Amino acid sequence: MPGISSELDCLVCMMRQALNTSRLATKDKEKQRKILNLVSKEIEKVNLKLPPAQISKVVYEIVREVTGVEDPFKDLKEKSNKEALLMIPELKKIVSSSQDPLYTSLYVAVAGNIIDLGIGHPFDLSRDVEKIMKSKFAIDDYGDFRKDIEKGKKLLYLGDNAGEIVFDRVLIEELLKLGLEIKFCVKSKPIINDATMEDAIISGIYEIVPVIETGNNSIGVDLENGSEEFKREFFGADIILSKGHGNFETCYGLPLNIYFLLKAKCDVVSRALCVRTGDIVFKKQRV
Amino acid sequence: MPGISSELDCLVCMMRQALNTSRLATKDKEKQRKILNLVSKEIEKVNLKLPPAQISKVVYEIVREVTGVEDPFKDLKEKSNKEALLMIPELKKIVSSSQDPLYTSLYVAVAGNIIDLGIGHPFDLSRDVEKIMKSKFAIDDYGDFRKDIEKGKKLLYLGDNAGEIVFDRVLIEELLKLGLEIKFCVKSKPIINDATMEDAIISGIYEIVPVIETGNNSIGVDLENGSEEFKREFFGADIILSKGHGNFETCYGLPLNIYFLLKAKCDVVSRALCVRTGDIVFKKQRV
Repeated sequence: MPGISSELDCLVCMMRQALNTSRLATKDKEKQRKILNLVSKEIEKVNLKLPPAQISKVVYEIVREVTGVEDPFKDLKEKSNKEALLMIPELKKIVSSSQDPLYTSLYVAVAGNIIDLGIGHPFDLSRDVEKIMKSKFAIDDYGDFRKDIEKGKKLLYLGDNAGEIVFDRVLIEELLKLGLEIKFCVKSKPIINDATMEDAIISGIYEIVPVIETGNNSIGVDLENGSEEFKREFFGADIILSKGHGNFETCYGLPLNIYFLLKAKCDVVSRALCVRTGDIVFKKQRV
Repeated sequence: MPGISSELDCLVCMMRQALNTSRLATKDKEKQRKILNLVSKEIEKVNLKLPPAQISKVVYEIVREVTGVEDPFKDLKEKSNKEALLMIPELKKIVSSSQDPLYTSLYVAVAGNIIDLGIGHPFDLSRDVEKIMKSKFAIDDYGDFRKDIEKGKKLLYLGDNAGEIVFDRVLIEELLKLGLEIKFCVKSKPIINDATMEDAIISGIYEIVPVIETGNNSIGVDLENGSEEFKREFFGADIILSKGHGNFETCYGLPLNIYFLLKAKCDVVSRALCVRTGDIVFKKQRV
């Protein structure tokens, strides 16, 4: 089975996600309590062999059922996109004036990965982006990546969150200059703060590369419920560039040419990557 | 009903406490999972009108039932006591050379309150103590306290955690110099890392003031299950000096002359105190 397994920490995290999301979806304390009660009843049914991304989906289904709110993160996603767009001119300057603009744009893209509203870790966008731009990848397979990217190669870019997608554009623009054939992938419907077609449009990505949808609103990649188009692009790509936790959690171990670009935000993911929580990673899949 | 109410955050925290404590009590992953499953089944029964200290007791009962381990924090408590004892000579020097040794020793005692192994916030004892010694109380009722302490007055000191109790001794020594009649109170049996008679002995407190027990191993004060001796001292004291979260959570609002000395370690307690999480507080009960 591809993907990483969950750990007991993920059960606690499910409850935390339930609390965070219930508060975004409703002000009604009784409904919030009902959500926590219903999620707590799911705990013993959870199969820890599945990735965290997969076991936590039920949390968001319960929030939707109890509150009727389809997209509790709507306002926060819009805010993330706007905040990110404000930072782009400055970041583009840093990229274009750097010795290796492609490499620098990888840092820009991973800096965008600090935006994560699901697991509820606090962040300060401009301060944290600045910090990441000064840091180093704990795993750095840029050398391999550099060899792998040749003119005309098909690259599928698996997007992660709203806001973050704006930073991804900076990397995509650099990759386009090298003549790659890029497609960008978003979720078909809202889930947490994951990017959808709307975010692809706002971020400007829609203008520069074809954007496809996964065919579902699972967290990460869900091949079982993937659209035919998604599966065709996923298995037809020469290179997959996978952003963030959810895509890593569900794709790790797949026998494909995948590069994972993410910040390890929790102990479960950092243990799987053998890095420290908080580290940034650009890792080629070894199969 | 005295004490603060719980919030939805406390339900998530119960799961986190279950995870932390299960890992201390056993290496058997199946037992750890069983503990989390059993705690998750308690969630919907929880009465949020009760204090966090009270609702979370079931977590520790479940850990005991599943693992048979009576005192999962035993090793960590010993370690905390030793680490604290190593710091005392330095802290005593700071106190004795300060302008107001009593006031400074309040900072020493509250610095000890960073030791908290239940809710699982990480801390670095010597670094964090240093930081607190340089900080300021967010609520500071020292003026009232100073007026309140007269020679011969009966002061009941409600102890909190192992390790922390070593720091409490520094404050107690200063209070004794003023001629107060002090009794120190510990739990009758282990619960989380709360101080018991053993810790009173190791800390040296047993040598300098009479030490009584609560009559139970509830978190904070549990009058319903309190020993006659405890209740006599509790209601007979002129001043109660209450350390830490558990005692605050269960005693806040009682019509007694209580001073709360603690670090607000979570949002629920800091909201009740109208301070920020991380703030230190020396607050007189207003009834």
